[in-house]
Order: sequence, then C-alpha cells, then structure tokens
Amino acid sequence: MPDSLAATDRTRLVREANRAVYDRDAIYKILDEAFICHLGFATADGQPFVIPTMFARVGDFLYFHGSAASRTLRGLASGLPACVTVTLTDGLVLARSVFNHSMNYRSVVVLGQAELIDDPAEKLAALHAFTEKLIPGRWNDARQPNEKELKATSILRLPLTEVSAKIRVGDVEDDADDYALRVWAGVIPLRLVADPPLRDSRCEASIPTPAYASNYKR
Amino acid sequence: MPDSLAATDRTRLVREANRAVYDRDAIYKILDEAFICHLGFATADGQPFVIPTMFARVGDFLYFHGSAASRTLRGLASGLPACVTVTLTDGLVLARSVFNHSMNYRSVVVLGQAELIDDPAEKLAALHAFTEKLIPGRWNDARQPNEKELKATSILRLPLTEVSAKIRVGDVEDDADDYALRVWAGVIPLRLVADPPLRDSRCEASIPTPAYASNYKR
Repeated sequence: MPDSLAATDRTRLVREANRAVYDRDAIYKILDEAFICHLGFATADGQPFVIPTMFARVGDFLYFHGSAASRTLRGLASGLPACVTVTLTDGLVLARSVFNHSMNYRSVVVLGQAELIDDPAEKLAALHAFTEKLIPGRWNDARQPNEKELKATSILRLPLTEVSAKIRVGDVEDDADDYALRVWAGVIPLRLVADPPLRDSRCEASIPTPAYASNYKR
Repeated sequence: MPDSLAATDRTRLVREANRAVYDRDAIYKILDEAFICHLGFATADGQPFVIPTMFARVGDFLYFHGSAASRTLRGLASGLPACVTVTLTDGLVLARSVFNHSMNYRSVVVLGQAELIDDPAEKLAALHAFTEKLIPGRWNDARQPNEKELKATSILRLPLTEVSAKIRVGDVEDDADDYALRVWAGVIPLRLVADPPLRDSRCEASIPTPAYASNYKR
C-alpha cells in the first residue's frame, strides 16, 4: 500500500485542515498506541450506536473480536458501513482566553465495511496480535485458545483504506491582543500510566510476577 | 428526574447483562470524570461518523460545543439521532487463559436527539461548565468569552433520558480448570496522570503557575 493515504470526500478535513494527517506511518503509530477504539454503526432507522472495544492492527487491517452471539458483530459482519475512531488525549491547553482553550490529542477515523474472519489460522493470528499489543510477552505465558474458544469468538477485520488522522500538538494559540494579559498560559501534559499490579487472590505467591506486569509501560 | 433510569429496548444490555448500570448517580460520576466523548451520527446513506469531542454535563443534559460552521454540529442540530459514548479504561485483566483476558472499564452510552442552544445565558453557562470541568478555577482567571466569540460558538445539548452504563471491575475470572495452571494472573491498574505543566513560551516568568496547573488532578 502507498505510504500516504489519499483523502476522500468523506475523510478530507474541512475544519482545522492544518491538523489533518494522511501519512500511513503516523496513523499506524496512533492505532498501535491506543487500547480501545469506538466502533460506530447505524441501524436501518438511522440510529447510530457507538461501542467501545479493543482492537489490534495487523498489516493494513484492524481486527475486532467479540462473542459469536454479539448483535453488534453480527450486524457489522452483514456489511453495515462502519466508522472506527481512535483517540489519544495528550494534554490540556490553557489559553489566556476561555475561547482558545483546547486539548492536545491524536485521533484516527477509519471508514469502511468489516468482514468476518473464518480461517482459524487468521483468527489465531488476530488473537495473538490482541494479546501481544496489550501485553507483549503474555501470549506465551498464558494458556492459548482451544478449539472451543476459537469457535466462540467472532473476529472481524476492517481494511485500512479510507483513513485520516487529526493531531493537535504544541503550544497555546491565543488572539494577538490577549498575549498582553497577565494570565498564566501553557499545556498540562496527560499520560496513561500503570500502577503496581494486583495479584489475583487465587494466584499463588510462589508464582513470580512477570516483568510485563510489574513494570508495565505503554 | 428519577434516581434510576429505566432500560429501553435500545439501552438494555443483552450480553454481559451483569455489567449493566442504570443508576443515575453512578452514570453521572462516569460522565463527570471523562474529558472526551465519542459522538456518533449517521448520514442518510447509513454511513456512521464517530467524532471525539469534549463535553460537560449540566444537570440532566450533556453539552457539546464547536464552530458554528461545523458540519457535524449543524447535522446534529437538524435533529439527526445521536449516540454519545464515554469510556474510561481502568485496568488490564490478565487471566490464566488468553480467552479470559479483559479490561476493567466504565462506559456510558446516551441515545437521543441534540438541540441547538440559542439563549446567550445558557450558552455562557455551558462554556463555564466546560472550563470548570476541565480545570476547576480556570474560568475566573482567563479572559471570559466576548459577544463575538459566543456567536462563533455553537452549543448543543442532549437530554440524559435514554442512558445506560457498563462497568467491569475487580478480579480475573478464569475457567475453573485453569486456576490450577502456574500462570501469573491479576490486574494492572491504569490511570490518567498529569505531568508538570509546560509554560507557554510567551508567558512571562513573573506570572505564577496556578495550583490547578502545577498540581493537576483528575
């Protein structure tokens, strides 16, 4: 696939177009950092539903999983148009005026139609990607999925063809006249951190805590 | 409004119904902790769009703001059905089996139709709520919106009538047979934290950093 995605009429940013990003590497970095996405679809009467769910990227596809009995996954598998949005919040931007307050963030919007994965090898590869994305090293430590579990899990994939990102970084942007005001201005950076892990009450103390849990980093 | 929201056919959880919450106080607490929501709507051809945006709750309404020129806000103001989803990620749940890995989270889904706010006093109250929600104390320090800025800002509100929450908390839930495995299991708590604030390059050093910036807490 090309390094840069062509904006379509549906992904081209109209407002704040200077924040638009169509570079594939930059977009994939955002997708790989985020834990969850918000998956949107609409029913026939036009009512949208937006569902938070975990996801993983493998190559030029996003993968989702859920119960084979899930209405959402069945609806999407039937070919409903989908929108997947991923958002990372990086900071609060405190301008001198209330009006120019903002957030630093990175977000990605993917439009398209999902398809159900039937091939057991591809399903297993997707589950591997989910696990290793969340906790690198965990797949080999945990009990891997058996045939029954694989059957009970539906996996969908969405091609990364119609995609755009929007990024706001950096300083405050105030109106020219407001810079003279004696108001503190700046950015408060935000970050998701992990606290020390809580051992399951039924996990024997003699089982050592793996480094990926005791020193978890995003 | 009643303390507990009645589940409708559209908000009643079918899957994992034990995670459903319809208590108004619990739902409002989640809404008030979150910075951003994901706002969904669909165009006439059934294509959903999911947009991350800031919001604030005032009483039994959610408020959103944006440019008066925004296509999204104009579409929503015209009465398109909306879905607003708010998600907080609280932890990674490491089960003994890959299949039972999960996340601890709190999410809220609001369905309804938004309406445009025309009354300048209500618009100002909504902007006050946005600012004070993000940074308590900031409204009085910053330059407050003037008439031109108020006109350039569209504000929508969505009634909190059809609302549900889904919460996963606590320990790992493994299959009975898997508890015998010598696999570390537990929860890695996740938390959004603020790093020390970055003073704007054009903010004079003699202006003291306010406590809400130097010691920001969610």
